[in-house]
Amino acid sequence: MYQAIVFDAYGTLFDVQAVAAAIEKEYPGNGAIVSRIWRQKQLEYTWLRPLMNRYVSFEKVNQDGLRYAFKRIGLQFDDETVTRLANTYLTLPLHPEVPQALAQLQQRCLILSNGTPKMLTTVVENASLASRFEGILSADAVKTYKPDTAVYTLALSHTHLEKAQILFVSSNAWDVAGAKSFGFPVAWINRQQSVPEQLDVLPDHEVSDMTGLVRVLNA
Amino acid sequence: MYQAIVFDAYGTLFDVQAVAAAIEKEYPGNGAIVSRIWRQKQLEYTWLRPLMNRYVSFEKVNQDGLRYAFKRIGLQFDDETVTRLANTYLTLPLHPEVPQALAQLQQRCLILSNGTPKMLTTVVENASLASRFEGILSADAVKTYKPDTAVYTLALSHTHLEKAQILFVSSNAWDVAGAKSFGFPVAWINRQQSVPEQLDVLPDHEVSDMTGLVRVLNA
Repeated sequence: MYQAIVFDAYGTLFDVQAVAAAIEKEYPGNGAIVSRIWRQKQLEYTWLRPLMNRYVSFEKVNQDGLRYAFKRIGLQFDDETVTRLANTYLTLPLHPEVPQALAQLQQRCLILSNGTPKMLTTVVENASLASRFEGILSADAVKTYKPDTAVYTLALSHTHLEKAQILFVSSNAWDVAGAKSFGFPVAWINRQQSVPEQLDVLPDHEVSDMTGLVRVLNA
Repeated sequence: MYQAIVFDAYGTLFDVQAVAAAIEKEYPGNGAIVSRIWRQKQLEYTWLRPLMNRYVSFEKVNQDGLRYAFKRIGLQFDDETVTRLANTYLTLPLHPEVPQALAQLQQRCLILSNGTPKMLTTVVENASLASRFEGILSADAVKTYKPDTAVYTLALSHTHLEKAQILFVSSNAWDVAGAKSFGFPVAWINRQQSVPEQLDVLPDHEVSDMTGLVRVLNA
């Protein structure tokens, strides 16, 4: 039924909360709160900047989110700290069930993410997954961020498939809404038992992890 | 120096946290948490929907934010509850220093807000401020939301002034960044002692309330 599966990267394949441990080591007692604010601001800046016509690379957006978090909590930091901690995005661990789940899928697999090509290539290589994906598509190619429809369009131009032939997979509720609104069939990896965004669209499939996705697809 | 002052409405002139009391009355113990999530989601949806090409009125966005908050916290609600609580936006109180501060400004004064024309006219009339503003400009005229540059442009076409002649005033850090990025001189009413957004632009003036703004302008 689906010819290709297009995966979001951060949160979906890779565990972004892993950065909390790196922060905790340098700022004891602050790992959880800083990583939470960092992720939230990183996302907000990807939504605000396209509206402001002020695109910068995700590398910078990611660092800016971390800077905000440090300032909000009132922690001392310098550029070197920000660079070092932001670089944990290059070695994020996979969610534990991901390798086996990917191995059980028959479809063409791609990644479509806000990350820069360099960030994505590096994190995928570090996770020994490079051979599993036929393409790694970055929002940087169109200088905007999800859920801008221009980003989702990249999957069509790369695969030469119709929307209905592509299953989009994300753990991020807003990304699920964006992809479904664009017209893809969508699976939501709802790892945190979140409630769906109230944006008038709902995913076709909802599972708690990638093993659940395999079960749905191979049913 | 400034020919006109353009004010954001929600948070800047009107106290949006006042809704917490209305929620608390119906859902004891939940007023603060529900109102905080409601406001956050309301804003997120104004950022996400323009990118998704899925504009709906701020009346609906506002209700959708409240629905999300109820679901997240796990509270029972129906459409009537949502409508009734969302309608508190029509009777929001002014921040206490606002009437006197507005009376001390010599400039042309306007409102530029995400609210619908009807929502804005009603809340301004309920606060007995209608005569103070020469115009109430709504993002609904361009079917998108701040910080989309199209919204800030409304102030130029209405006033026939240059950007440099208009002071934009907001308490919302992301709106401050959006207006400054657009090219307006900007004053940030930083009521909560927040840190600025890390979006490469900073306000020209930062004050803690509207009285501080009057002091800066009449200095």
